[in-house]
Amino acid sequence: MKIQVMKNILGENDKVADENRELFDEKNVFVINLMGSPGSGKTSLLELTLAKLKNKIKIAVIEGDLFTTKDAERIERHDVPVIQINTAGGCHLDAAMVKHAAESLNLDDIDLIIVENVGNLVCPAEFDVGENLKAVVLSITEGDDKPMKYPLIFKESKIAILNKIDIIKFTNFNLESAREDLTTLNPGIKIIETSCTSEEGIEDWCNWIMSEVRQLIVNKN
Amino acid sequence: MKIQVMKNILGENDKVADENRELFDEKNVFVINLMGSPGSGKTSLLELTLAKLKNKIKIAVIEGDLFTTKDAERIERHDVPVIQINTAGGCHLDAAMVKHAAESLNLDDIDLIIVENVGNLVCPAEFDVGENLKAVVLSITEGDDKPMKYPLIFKESKIAILNKIDIIKFTNFNLESAREDLTTLNPGIKIIETSCTSEEGIEDWCNWIMSEVRQLIVNKN
Repeated sequence: MKIQVMKNILGENDKVADENRELFDEKNVFVINLMGSPGSGKTSLLELTLAKLKNKIKIAVIEGDLFTTKDAERIERHDVPVIQINTAGGCHLDAAMVKHAAESLNLDDIDLIIVENVGNLVCPAEFDVGENLKAVVLSITEGDDKPMKYPLIFKESKIAILNKIDIIKFTNFNLESAREDLTTLNPGIKIIETSCTSEEGIEDWCNWIMSEVRQLIVNKN
Repeated sequence: MKIQVMKNILGENDKVADENRELFDEKNVFVINLMGSPGSGKTSLLELTLAKLKNKIKIAVIEGDLFTTKDAERIERHDVPVIQINTAGGCHLDAAMVKHAAESLNLDDIDLIIVENVGNLVCPAEFDVGENLKAVVLSITEGDDKPMKYPLIFKESKIAILNKIDIIKFTNFNLESAREDLTTLNPGIKIIETSCTSEEGIEDWCNWIMSEVRQLIVNKN
């Protein structure tokens, strides 16, 4: 019974996600669904990404949060369009929420939307929001066992960002074992090590985004 | 419509949670629902807790996990009864899962059950499992903004364990501001700083558990 309800919700969600994707395609807007645990560093990574890329391509941000606008306020300082979605306690963004947020954006003047999902390593992976790709941020302080413990999000993501790499020596995180598990779950996954403090790997991450988006920009101009 | 479905599920859950609580009361078993983000250190804290307390009181563990038995294997080494619940992708434990797990335990020979919930700072807080109290582990590497961003879990918990305190100097975590936010959300909340590496604060945490459980042990013996 409970499972059936979940199937109905997911079926309805997929329909709206497909509509979102059609609209984004039509407008040549590339969409990244950025996911990860609370405190994995999604907003910090996003801030650095905006600083590096906002003069190269036109970026907008959709911020998912339970109640507050704390993250959206951090993003707003970077002078890009940002729409806040408050889920009122809900544990993930769904396609209808993103559709509603996208209606407030001028899609003709945007190349890339980064959707920062609610901090959660489980539920966001189950809900397609109409993105081109999913990206998952894993802080090395969370432990190298997380890919195998929360497999869906790592299977669904095109890239895994291993963040806070600057403090790895104060943890027992085993990079080799994490890479092995990630590749076992998702053979094609791209893996990048980053630090938002030392900025290690940020250039690689931004270059990777640009290479993913490039084809769309070429079409648009 | 979606909200209504959620209400039905929660209503049904509360009924089973009350039945669980009645059974645990009858058997003089104290139950702690241990929650927190993936990688906040719940299992490490639990391992140290077992090492310190298992000779003083009879402890059993119910381990929630999506698919694996990684955490349960770590707990089993401490030679206490452990029941693994695999949620098959589900993002939280509910009362029916705990009821089912408890049926496999000899409650007459147990003083304390610690239920380690799925790593998630959102959904577990919404589902009463019949516990006496909720405890939330927040790793300082997650950031001091988390209480205000994920308020329900901190409102519902009797104690907040600020873990990985040994590496606070490598983060920008502001202890004072976190304490202030926690107390604003939940004026009565107990706050303990711990490290599972240096073992700072572990004694305090164990003493606190013992003081909570003591009254029940007195009744039992």
